[in-house]
Amino acid sequence: MKVNNVPTRSIWRVADHAAVDIIDQTALPHAYRVLRLASLEDAAHAIRSMQVRGAPLIGATAAYGVALALLRDASDAALANAVATLGGTRPTAVNLHWALQRMQAHLAPLPAIERGAAAWREAEAIADEDVAQNRAIGEHGLALLRPLAEKRGRLDVMTHCNAGWLATVDHGTALSPVYAAFDAGIDVRVWVSETRPRNQGLLTAWELQQHGVPHTLIADNAAGLLLARGEVDAVIVGADRIAANGDVANKVGTYLKALAAKEAGVPFYVAAPRSTLDFGCAAGDAIPIEEREGDELRVVNGTGSDGRPAAVRQLAKDEAVANPAFDVTPARFVAAVITERGSAAAHALATLYPEERHG
Amino acid sequence: MKVNNVPTRSIWRVADHAAVDIIDQTALPHAYRVLRLASLEDAAHAIRSMQVRGAPLIGATAAYGVALALLRDASDAALANAVATLGGTRPTAVNLHWALQRMQAHLAPLPAIERGAAAWREAEAIADEDVAQNRAIGEHGLALLRPLAEKRGRLDVMTHCNAGWLATVDHGTALSPVYAAFDAGIDVRVWVSETRPRNQGLLTAWELQQHGVPHTLIADNAAGLLLARGEVDAVIVGADRIAANGDVANKVGTYLKALAAKEAGVPFYVAAPRSTLDFGCAAGDAIPIEEREGDELRVVNGTGSDGRPAAVRQLAKDEAVANPAFDVTPARFVAAVITERGSAAAHALATLYPEERHG
Repeated sequence: MKVNNVPTRSIWRVADHAAVDIIDQTALPHAYRVLRLASLEDAAHAIRSMQVRGAPLIGATAAYGVALALLRDASDAALANAVATLGGTRPTAVNLHWALQRMQAHLAPLPAIERGAAAWREAEAIADEDVAQNRAIGEHGLALLRPLAEKRGRLDVMTHCNAGWLATVDHGTALSPVYAAFDAGIDVRVWVSETRPRNQGLLTAWELQQHGVPHTLIADNAAGLLLARGEVDAVIVGADRIAANGDVANKVGTYLKALAAKEAGVPFYVAAPRSTLDFGCAAGDAIPIEEREGDELRVVNGTGSDGRPAAVRQLAKDEAVANPAFDVTPARFVAAVITERGSAAAHALATLYPEERHG
Repeated sequence: MKVNNVPTRSIWRVADHAAVDIIDQTALPHAYRVLRLASLEDAAHAIRSMQVRGAPLIGATAAYGVALALLRDASDAALANAVATLGGTRPTAVNLHWALQRMQAHLAPLPAIERGAAAWREAEAIADEDVAQNRAIGEHGLALLRPLAEKRGRLDVMTHCNAGWLATVDHGTALSPVYAAFDAGIDVRVWVSETRPRNQGLLTAWELQQHGVPHTLIADNAAGLLLARGEVDAVIVGADRIAANGDVANKVGTYLKALAAKEAGVPFYVAAPRSTLDFGCAAGDAIPIEEREGDELRVVNGTGSDGRPAAVRQLAKDEAVANPAFDVTPARFVAAVITERGSAAAHALATLYPEERHG
């Protein structure tokens, strides 16, 4: 996609350098900064600190992280260490493990001397495939959205968190059909949820703005009212892991939107590539849910005595906080999962992947 | 209740002064400040700016506001002006109109010379009745909670926004049963929702802390996961207006919790005094929903490049924002409404008030 009208991906290899560049997503939307990752440690830190986030981008970053690690040491031990280090960064997104397993399966049989170049090629292949898959998700999603838009003459989509091009290598998952609709001339508008505590909705607002797609920011709490009022035609979200039975782990708060969509009779779609599907995981209750630092919640924007938000303030360290980063939406709330192969009911995902024999 | 172990209300007449004092709730939990209201304009500003908030406290403040107005001018015109000015401050909470109608009905027939003293007496009566009613709500609510606590040996309650003593003159609505349970020796813990965009959950955390009640702060988005996991025994919220059919307007986000409670088989209770019931309003879709300033959402706590929240940042003014402050929970999601007269199914509220002939 584009930043200031210049085409870009969210991660790319630096020409003639043994490094990759990323967009520092903790600085957005307030500042646009490119960060260089030159080592395994840089890559692991970028994932852990959410400089890169979004399940598909986490996977791609991990693949590049293996390539960076093997630059210095391409031994079996170094490969195993890279996979273990990167695998321990975040627990919920399965794309991370998918990418690491693919890198390991590809590299382990090779002689160490060949691994360095092979790792770069495989990481590039993972990134390129992500881009192609997301473009296909956009087309398949557009096929679902087009009839909704034709019925009303416009299309109001609600999303949660950021599952746009910033969350992938390019195009996005949930936002790929939105961009496809916009590019097809559909009058599409997006309700963008703030997504506390980390405010990834601001990333969504920023990338929609870069592409010119009309959108409105809301508090997460407002989603139910808007759905009940009939102001939403479809909800589309991404996913961090989809179990074999179609249960969907995604950013915490997703489940509440699914409940409200169901109650309002509005279709709730999940867009994700193959790497997000975990056929080895039977159901949602087996998906590990990351518990993040309480400080993400302890720092709040305060309100001045004039009733307007004023300054950031820190709650006391002894203020007890629970901060689960994901929740699980049962398959029965999902109207369809949109993948690079097309869309299917969540419980029937395996029909899109007949070659899978897991679980 | 208490602040630093000193008993206090949220609003009180200053002895020997023609003024009332309030706790500036826009400064909490970061600073405890008492503000003096000495005029109609002070009272209207305090309500509009949310220095006082919570439906019952808004009502009491409006009553005192009429008394303050009549100090200077007790004419019919001044009374009408005070009622109109205060009535225009916030649209959703019906207690505001209830209190103003009561003041007007009581004062209008009196000669102007008697109105000043009568207004103070009536405002004091409204405040005292609120305290007594909320204490009764606590006892009736405890009767519902006690069996849940006995079943598990502890009691995990989830609430939304602040419906504690800070939202009333004293004791609170939703939190009154919680305080009653705590004082009765029940091992009660409270899940406190942040309540974006104005973070009133921090007021709830603060007042629970002052009383020693264990509690845990969560992002609004986490409510669904906690309910689905079985970590909540009951949800209790307050209300800003309850329609004749039992539909409940309350802080935006309430409806999402009601949906998740229903799905989890967890009882969802609404606690409110008579002044919150609007028998003249047939159903929830007739309740006006306040749309507040977009700036409440445009100022966010940012995240530093180290991945930790850092500084407050202002989004661009042209960032489109929708900021409805309330939503409506249909009566069928409400297990019971708890009033000072006892509890009843939401659709059967009129059985508690047989003398009402409205609607």
